[in-house]
Amino acid sequence: MLTLPQIDRVVGAALEEDAPWGDLTSETLIPAAATASADLSAREDGVFSGSEVFAAAFRLTDPSIQVDLHIGDGERFSRGDLLATVTGPARGILQAERIGLNFVQRMSGIATLTARYVDAVAGTRARIIDTRKTTPGLRALERHAVRSGGGFNHRFSLSDAVMAKDNHLAVLTAGGLSLTEALIAVRGQLSHTTHLEVEVDRLDQIDAVLAAGVDTIMLDNFGLDDLRAGVEQVGGRAIIEASGNVTLDTVAAIAATGVDVISSGALTHSVRSLDLGLDVSITAAPVP
Amino acid sequence: MLTLPQIDRVVGAALEEDAPWGDLTSETLIPAAATASADLSAREDGVFSGSEVFAAAFRLTDPSIQVDLHIGDGERFSRGDLLATVTGPARGILQAERIGLNFVQRMSGIATLTARYVDAVAGTRARIIDTRKTTPGLRALERHAVRSGGGFNHRFSLSDAVMAKDNHLAVLTAGGLSLTEALIAVRGQLSHTTHLEVEVDRLDQIDAVLAAGVDTIMLDNFGLDDLRAGVEQVGGRAIIEASGNVTLDTVAAIAATGVDVISSGALTHSVRSLDLGLDVSITAAPVP
Amino acid sequence: MLTLPQIDRVVGAALEEDAPWGDLTSETLIPAAATASADLSAREDGVFSGSEVFAAAFRLTDPSIQVDLHIGDGERFSRGDLLATVTGPARGILQAERIGLNFVQRMSGIATLTARYVDAVAGTRARIIDTRKTTPGLRALERHAVRSGGGFNHRFSLSDAVMAKDNHLAVLTAGGLSLTEALIAVRGQLSHTTHLEVEVDRLDQIDAVLAAGVDTIMLDNFGLDDLRAGVEQVGGRAIIEASGNVTLDTVAAIAATGVDVISSGALTHSVRSLDLGLDVSITAAPVP
Amino acid sequence: MLTLPQIDRVVGAALEEDAPWGDLTSETLIPAAATASADLSAREDGVFSGSEVFAAAFRLTDPSIQVDLHIGDGERFSRGDLLATVTGPARGILQAERIGLNFVQRMSGIATLTARYVDAVAGTRARIIDTRKTTPGLRALERHAVRSGGGFNHRFSLSDAVMAKDNHLAVLTAGGLSLTEALIAVRGQLSHTTHLEVEVDRLDQIDAVLAAGVDTIMLDNFGLDDLRAGVEQVGGRAIIEASGNVTLDTVAAIAATGVDVISSGALTHSVRSLDLGLDVSITAAPVP
Amino acid sequence: MLTLPQIDRVVGAALEEDAPWGDLTSETLIPAAATASADLSAREDGVFSGSEVFAAAFRLTDPSIQVDLHIGDGERFSRGDLLATVTGPARGILQAERIGLNFVQRMSGIATLTARYVDAVAGTRARIIDTRKTTPGLRALERHAVRSGGGFNHRFSLSDAVMAKDNHLAVLTAGGLSLTEALIAVRGQLSHTTHLEVEVDRLDQIDAVLAAGVDTIMLDNFGLDDLRAGVEQVGGRAIIEASGNVTLDTVAAIAATGVDVISSGALTHSVRSLDLGLDVSITAAPVP
Amino acid sequence: MLTLPQIDRVVGAALEEDAPWGDLTSETLIPAAATASADLSAREDGVFSGSEVFAAAFRLTDPSIQVDLHIGDGERFSRGDLLATVTGPARGILQAERIGLNFVQRMSGIATLTARYVDAVAGTRARIIDTRKTTPGLRALERHAVRSGGGFNHRFSLSDAVMAKDNHLAVLTAGGLSLTEALIAVRGQLSHTTHLEVEVDRLDQIDAVLAAGVDTIMLDNFGLDDLRAGVEQVGGRAIIEASGNVTLDTVAAIAATGVDVISSGALTHSVRSLDLGLDVSITAAPVP
Repeated sequence: MLTLPQIDRVVGAALEEDAPWGDLTSETLIPAAATASADLSAREDGVFSGSEVFAAAFRLTDPSIQVDLHIGDGERFSRGDLLATVTGPARGILQAERIGLNFVQRMSGIATLTARYVDAVAGTRARIIDTRKTTPGLRALERHAVRSGGGFNHRFSLSDAVMAKDNHLAVLTAGGLSLTEALIAVRGQLSHTTHLEVEVDRLDQIDAVLAAGVDTIMLDNFGLDDLRAGVEQVGGRAIIEASGNVTLDTVAAIAATGVDVISSGALTHSVRSLDLGLDVSITAAPVP
Repeated sequence: MLTLPQIDRVVGAALEEDAPWGDLTSETLIPAAATASADLSAREDGVFSGSEVFAAAFRLTDPSIQVDLHIGDGERFSRGDLLATVTGPARGILQAERIGLNFVQRMSGIATLTARYVDAVAGTRARIIDTRKTTPGLRALERHAVRSGGGFNHRFSLSDAVMAKDNHLAVLTAGGLSLTEALIAVRGQLSHTTHLEVEVDRLDQIDAVLAAGVDTIMLDNFGLDDLRAGVEQVGGRAIIEASGNVTLDTVAAIAATGVDVISSGALTHSVRSLDLGLDVSITAAPVP
Repeated sequence: MLTLPQIDRVVGAALEEDAPWGDLTSETLIPAAATASADLSAREDGVFSGSEVFAAAFRLTDPSIQVDLHIGDGERFSRGDLLATVTGPARGILQAERIGLNFVQRMSGIATLTARYVDAVAGTRARIIDTRKTTPGLRALERHAVRSGGGFNHRFSLSDAVMAKDNHLAVLTAGGLSLTEALIAVRGQLSHTTHLEVEVDRLDQIDAVLAAGVDTIMLDNFGLDDLRAGVEQVGGRAIIEASGNVTLDTVAAIAATGVDVISSGALTHSVRSLDLGLDVSITAAPVP
Repeated sequence: MLTLPQIDRVVGAALEEDAPWGDLTSETLIPAAATASADLSAREDGVFSGSEVFAAAFRLTDPSIQVDLHIGDGERFSRGDLLATVTGPARGILQAERIGLNFVQRMSGIATLTARYVDAVAGTRARIIDTRKTTPGLRALERHAVRSGGGFNHRFSLSDAVMAKDNHLAVLTAGGLSLTEALIAVRGQLSHTTHLEVEVDRLDQIDAVLAAGVDTIMLDNFGLDDLRAGVEQVGGRAIIEASGNVTLDTVAAIAATGVDVISSGALTHSVRSLDLGLDVSITAAPVP
Repeated sequence: MLTLPQIDRVVGAALEEDAPWGDLTSETLIPAAATASADLSAREDGVFSGSEVFAAAFRLTDPSIQVDLHIGDGERFSRGDLLATVTGPARGILQAERIGLNFVQRMSGIATLTARYVDAVAGTRARIIDTRKTTPGLRALERHAVRSGGGFNHRFSLSDAVMAKDNHLAVLTAGGLSLTEALIAVRGQLSHTTHLEVEVDRLDQIDAVLAAGVDTIMLDNFGLDDLRAGVEQVGGRAIIEASGNVTLDTVAAIAATGVDVISSGALTHSVRSLDLGLDVSITAAPVP
Repeated sequence: MLTLPQIDRVVGAALEEDAPWGDLTSETLIPAAATASADLSAREDGVFSGSEVFAAAFRLTDPSIQVDLHIGDGERFSRGDLLATVTGPARGILQAERIGLNFVQRMSGIATLTARYVDAVAGTRARIIDTRKTTPGLRALERHAVRSGGGFNHRFSLSDAVMAKDNHLAVLTAGGLSLTEALIAVRGQLSHTTHLEVEVDRLDQIDAVLAAGVDTIMLDNFGLDDLRAGVEQVGGRAIIEASGNVTLDTVAAIAATGVDVISSGALTHSVRSLDLGLDVSITAAPVP
């Protein structure tokens, strides 16, 4: 779901931010005819993401640079694995390397963290999903990385699904309508393809919400007992999302309650870049 | 050093990413005439950064929203402090809140982490500086956050200072020139305002580099003893940057060696957003 | 769901297309100090849409022009009604009038046509919805106009819902899976908020599709008898969309079969602009 | 007069509007290795326009898609004719087909309608020309389509020719100048390459206008007798444009009066897309 | 004919080029609360142009800066005259002053040079006009400056008038058509508002060109005798443009031959900025 | 230091400015199949600059045009030399020629003028450098041209070095600090890579400035005797920039005083385009 124009726009902007009028160092210290090769290798285990983005950093800097990828998005690698090889003019490779590496480290960091959550819930029906807490400007890339890690995505933006929270419910019912009546009225205003999700804080809200025919009910900050009770109460009438207090330590127990999706802002909120290395060796240009 | 066009471009793009064709939820659930107020408050101690960016998120969504800031960039706050108040049309506030909060959490996260490093080196001559390992598209904001935390910035980009590393030095001397000769030739090609920094891996490289009259010498991954020896060897002839293995645990000892600047990619590389809360209360529109 | 940046971008581009380096005629023939007023009035009955877009044409040309709207989007008007009044500097009003009128004629044309379809199905459960057959660059505006006319929108783009057609179904089942199995596998790959709609051409496909738990089933080019049979067969297990051969003459009968939504590309595909007039009277500037 | 950057900008924006973060359906249902071919064929007779625009929709989505055009802009075709063949990766073809088809249907619709007007005036000196009533954002494409149909274009925008209407004439003569004097003064302010056209409502205005040496005189909403009288009165001293009440039924009689150009907003104002079909057949990817 | 969006785009880009991430000097040396006033004054006599552009430089940097203009575009001033006063926050004024001054010096330089040519031909029928030899990106501004100096503009671009030169004429007649026949064919392909200008190098080409009914004939690099002969030969049947060898020394004699327009690339080709001064005095901020 | 995206953006904008909807003349007068070749030749001696920019004008207009350069940036040529050959479709070559020529004339004009200054100071230690007085939008190109002529660049923008002038110094010391103390405080706020340059008007300011450890001291409008005295007084403790009254007549004497860099706004402020010719010969398309 990453399109070429998207990738080129994001990576192109990053390259321009990092070298608005060229790379002074390479242009001064490296002969124009020098070539180089660079190995992208893993310094820790992980799940790969960002192959097209990595390649774009070099292609947009100098179209004559060649990028050979030895791994695909979503594949696992071990410390020491060679992930990609870059060859071509040394100046361009040196100018682009930081940006290319930065993106692939971030995306693989997200993919790897996601995969840990996914592994933790293996054997349950629960999916791991992201939230809107992504890095400004990088949402499409970070959502792709979540998928590389085996996770799924929540709605892309405020424009493509409705998520009603406590604040909204209070306003909805302020005029005297019951919650069910109010939600039925909301549903009547939505496009038939628009997903309607409602967040509840207490078990006793579930029946009123389900009576309105919502698509997903989010149980926010429920304890494990309440989650189990909620799953039973919903009884398959809606998708159940668990949210709040989701960590690598708690996620397995949450999944075991029978919920359908577990959302975690941590997947993208506080990204730890994965430790990948890009080692460049420069070949001095042949004497003419 | 943040300009208004810069802020508006970055925040405007984030808002468009998050609501390309509006906020379905607010438009469906909240009456157009409803107003709201939102309190930005601290859930942990920290250093503030991003006031103008936070305000821009609301201003660009709906110019009639009012943002009152109770703290300035670079000021410290404690858990529980009220940092800002936002008032105006409820739809716009709900649409912009996530973006406004996201930016101020990231920037304050960077400022707070930087301040810890700065505190750790108090009493020494050492400055804490950032690197080019910033989030793509957000460099200007993240550098501003580093300054809010009391840190300083390294070069902005590849275009505004020269940083020669081992790779470059190997190429420079491949043709038979001594390192000193080669660096003098490099200096002769640079603008008089361009800073020349050279990275060395061993103490025995220092004299050759200094003989060329470089501005800064970077001692990369030196142990504490070698740093001390390096400081003595340089003897004030150049600025000394220490780099590598810089953590909150090690930074005080590194600073105590007498180096001038200590650079840490961690300030911006793996950002932990600070825990700030934005609590919105909606006032149902008055019955006409 | 029209945002201010969206409106300004679309209208700003139209203004620049129509007067890239100013309005030669106004600048040559009209004194800079001349003022004007312009009345937007209806030359035929209709439903209004595009108030904010109309106003933007004048505001973006000269912020000192005042636009007073006497009708809101979605309201009906009769031939002869005064819809809006524009007052201010004559040059700016003359420069912007064609663009402002063009947009409001198109959008009100769509709203009015939609309202005819909506009126025709009154008393049934059927909604009238648009398709992706919109004018390139104007989708958000045209979708808004459909809503002004009482219609609803289908998915915004290829990115926000899945619509599987005959072509896709053939590929899906080419490997030996049954249609139900294949669609269950598809569902398993989709985000929980993503709507899954499947198009069928024959009644005997319905059960296999429903068995996979799709959200909407589209009955494409079904006759009235088959539509009725389809409605009965689906029995509330999915939303039913009727498509094909939808005209003002046929839509009531289609709605009477009990389908949920009726989509028509004609709403936006071949727009007939509504006949609205904008009569400008210029006040020669007072002698100083 | 369509430039490549123009085409790519308009088509690129349409593609992004239709699939901002990819085509969910194709990516989920169609294997990445599947190929397809698509035939563009005529479902009614017409005149072709938009070949480069059609090809751009596919090229910009995936450069490896091949588009073979069997007809050129301005050529006539019959129902059933094969107009173009598209081959390549199935995902890209499915993602781009609606946009490619949309443009070529609109442009061929305009070309075909224009050609009917042109055919209707065959044997007279009259040319058929468009107006500024084009679709916002698509003016260059729609003007090209008018030319494909054998028509000509009026001025491109408000910036490249002067067109004085009743409003302007009233202001011009408000200060006491005669119409002739005022128009001579106007001419004196214009660049020598700027065309000056004046609209008149009555025969008795013609002599005063011609005395000022205008380039074109527009006879607005004249009956056939008055048009004939106007042609005689002008006597070749200016180009004569007839405007108002121009339909396929009236245009031949208008042309027979001897006017030089006949302008019709209907050519582009209320576009009826031509019925062209694009039939895609997908080849399931070979088993590896 | 300068539009506000045009001015803001050009000036905004210049400001960003000159201070992509702020003005380090002002931010470091000048207190945020300091105010300043700046006087724009003339250091040589001239004709003013660029008032709106000058004001935009300050407005776009900081909307709270006030610009008071004491002279309008096209007005003459003498050495020592005060042309404008700028007051407001010192940082913004210092950041914007170079850009504001740069534009107004260039534009007034063009206006002043143009006025000298215009003065030199006073009393003749000849107009002074510019060419397409403008500074890339600044054409609209430079054309405006030519008008400020009393000159007129040639066509804006390649898109809005036809100018046939020797190269084109050779191609036109290569197939056996006479020049008159070929030009009549050309005219038949042009929009009725498109100006047709033909360049000739010799007197004996004039009759053939005029026989085709062109709008303007350009006599390129003709001596004074030939110009006089050309004017007589044309006899009012077309506008006559003289081009080539136009300097302040020769222009009066060229004008005296009776030509209609005299074009000079020198007006914009090699701009000499006028010597205007902008003297800033800073008021230190009051002690709080 | 010119990057490909930079060149394409600047040249692309110039091409669009010059032919927003195509080249009417070429499209009307030249057959689509005609080819042409064009020779870029020198009509005066000079130093070349702008090869990549010249080539981009043709490449961006029509990728099938071939540009062969016979000279590189920074190389000298003599009147009559053939500098480049362009071959390909005639329409595209005719459309792009003015823009391509315009850029290379400007850039070679700057390079040639710079080279005269550089030649004039040969044998001294002085470098010739530019200022921020460049053409808005073309700074990167003009700085490149200065380098082509053997000159060096001053800071790129207000964002990358500090230059303190009299105004700033007055403010700095208004609070009671000595100039040395104030500058030391300034230095303490700057990044270690930021160059600090201070302008002085009198010899007696030098010691106070140097005591603060500035990088460059600018002696503004000093006479030759004072420059010599200043050089002696500085005694190698800072780089010395001479500024003011720098002309081709005075520059050698200024250089002889021993200053390090001599800055001249004239290099780019009032550009005289070099006289280069581009002669196009069109080959009529072969009869099919």
